[in-house]
Amino acid sequence: MSDSICIAVDAMGGDFGPRVVIPASVDALARHSRLTLQLVGQQDILTPLLQQSLAKHSDKALSSRISIINAEKVIGCDERPSYALRKRRDTSMYRAIVQVAEGQAQACVSAGNTGALMALGRFTLKMLPGIDRPAIITAIPSEGGVSYMLDLGANVDCSAEHLLQFAIMGSVMTSAVEGIAEPRVGLLNVGAEEIKGNEQVKLASRLIREHGGLNYQGFIEGGDIFTDKVDVVVCDGFVGNIALKSSEGVARLMARQLQRSFSRSPWRKLMAWMVSPILNELQAHIDPARRNGASLLGLQGIVVKSHGSANRECFGYAIDQAVAEVIMDVPGSINRQLESHIADV
Amino acid sequence: MSDSICIAVDAMGGDFGPRVVIPASVDALARHSRLTLQLVGQQDILTPLLQQSLAKHSDKALSSRISIINAEKVIGCDERPSYALRKRRDTSMYRAIVQVAEGQAQACVSAGNTGALMALGRFTLKMLPGIDRPAIITAIPSEGGVSYMLDLGANVDCSAEHLLQFAIMGSVMTSAVEGIAEPRVGLLNVGAEEIKGNEQVKLASRLIREHGGLNYQGFIEGGDIFTDKVDVVVCDGFVGNIALKSSEGVARLMARQLQRSFSRSPWRKLMAWMVSPILNELQAHIDPARRNGASLLGLQGIVVKSHGSANRECFGYAIDQAVAEVIMDVPGSINRQLESHIADV
Repeated sequence: MSDSICIAVDAMGGDFGPRVVIPASVDALARHSRLTLQLVGQQDILTPLLQQSLAKHSDKALSSRISIINAEKVIGCDERPSYALRKRRDTSMYRAIVQVAEGQAQACVSAGNTGALMALGRFTLKMLPGIDRPAIITAIPSEGGVSYMLDLGANVDCSAEHLLQFAIMGSVMTSAVEGIAEPRVGLLNVGAEEIKGNEQVKLASRLIREHGGLNYQGFIEGGDIFTDKVDVVVCDGFVGNIALKSSEGVARLMARQLQRSFSRSPWRKLMAWMVSPILNELQAHIDPARRNGASLLGLQGIVVKSHGSANRECFGYAIDQAVAEVIMDVPGSINRQLESHIADV
Repeated sequence: MSDSICIAVDAMGGDFGPRVVIPASVDALARHSRLTLQLVGQQDILTPLLQQSLAKHSDKALSSRISIINAEKVIGCDERPSYALRKRRDTSMYRAIVQVAEGQAQACVSAGNTGALMALGRFTLKMLPGIDRPAIITAIPSEGGVSYMLDLGANVDCSAEHLLQFAIMGSVMTSAVEGIAEPRVGLLNVGAEEIKGNEQVKLASRLIREHGGLNYQGFIEGGDIFTDKVDVVVCDGFVGNIALKSSEGVARLMARQLQRSFSRSPWRKLMAWMVSPILNELQAHIDPARRNGASLLGLQGIVVKSHGSANRECFGYAIDQAVAEVIMDVPGSINRQLESHIADV
């Protein structure tokens, strides 16, 4: 456990690129004494920004744990995955993943194009045996504290077999990360009754039941995601992406409404100040930014995706998540448990 | 406008059946002086409950505006639509819809099985010309006040052509109800870029654009539903149902968290009391119960679906919505505008 942890960071990804990634990286070094970071991107841009960030920091020893790997190109946020795959050479995202594939880093973090990250991750790191496609998984707040939801947008068309694979991966990941022996798995549907839903979820439900190796709770509805009904929510990437983003949207709407209500008079502003600890508690529990960092599951390596719009603090959470996954050896424990699971499929 | 409004109410539907429907109906009579109600269900059960409810009311004249239509059977909440259709004779839901088809009532309201209501509505009232399937639409809170979202679960597998029809119906309904000349229409997807999404939404987007008669804003993401980006959110019923229910779920989670935080100490309880007007304002804006009442759009008649779990107050909102749709002649104005729209398809 005293070994150092090395993470490759795509310094060019996301809406703000190195302006956010570099300060967040320096902050992360200060938080984790065993961490070493490789910033991948255009050296001319990164070098002065890194020097600035390090200069502002009181701990002058941090500079020994961060280096720059030059990559001249950047994958745009609108580029198709197939184009990104063709034009990958010398892009910051690809170079960061290659560091993991070559064993130079134990994980990589990017706030770039999700489709490209998935395609490059799959191409470079390869899938775990028995898994067809990577799935994006993230922790979401719930009555029980936290639950895990996948897929969140990597796959917009999924077969029932893919949903079964997601259920297995999600269960194993939740077990590894949260230490739950038999995580409760639910399949997202428009009703809890067996007759409800489209053909694909009905078939997936039968497959998961027949597989038998999971603590399967059957169908759950959208309203159950944030309760304590299950630990793992399984769905295709189209539905998962929209469910998660619409939930974040309603949370933002509520926050704005509260803010507006509390600023309507001086007396209300005073009340807002008095209740601010309570509102901050709520924020801390719900805020998706605090949970920034989604994992690409199913790859033979750790790839963490940050929100494209992440600020300095949020990007730091994504780095923290990569650190945690390295410490817990998530792909290794998934692979070990997959061997027995997939043998049963 | 001085004519009476007559609504048939499926008194047996929903989790609580007549125990909720009858008091809610009597309340509605007191609110709307021009309203006449027909309670459809098992006479033996309804008669004493209605007498009790009327006896509690100070206005003794209400009894002249409410009647009972006997129907011995009830459609269960788990029954398949095809089974409900075969076994429809003498069920409360079917008899209520028949009242509309025969011109004895101008609308019907039910808290029963959604799939059955859609199948029976379609079978009995028929579709508007040019529309293949009914869609469920409801008003949702947003930054701009309110927007409309469809489909919310009537159709779990939709083609691109169905999504185009939903876009037209949603636009016309929003225009009629909200008085917006050219409602902004958005198609729900996993990203705003043209390359994102599954084949079905990509094709639907092309069809809506080619149709040309709508104020089409392109793809929107889950997070945009509750902003002021569009007035009409179009999606298939699987995605719409899950997006709406997960949003309601996160709103409930936030409300419970606040409640828990505010009850942690006597001082916090005092603060809760002080800020209660503000929390009530939020509740009034967000609370899905206040917006209970979804319409089955595309039928040649008004059918309003209440949440199955609606309480007395909530079921009343569904009746209010039916009253409003009768006053605004929603199907008529949809049909008139559809004629020109569909002619262009």
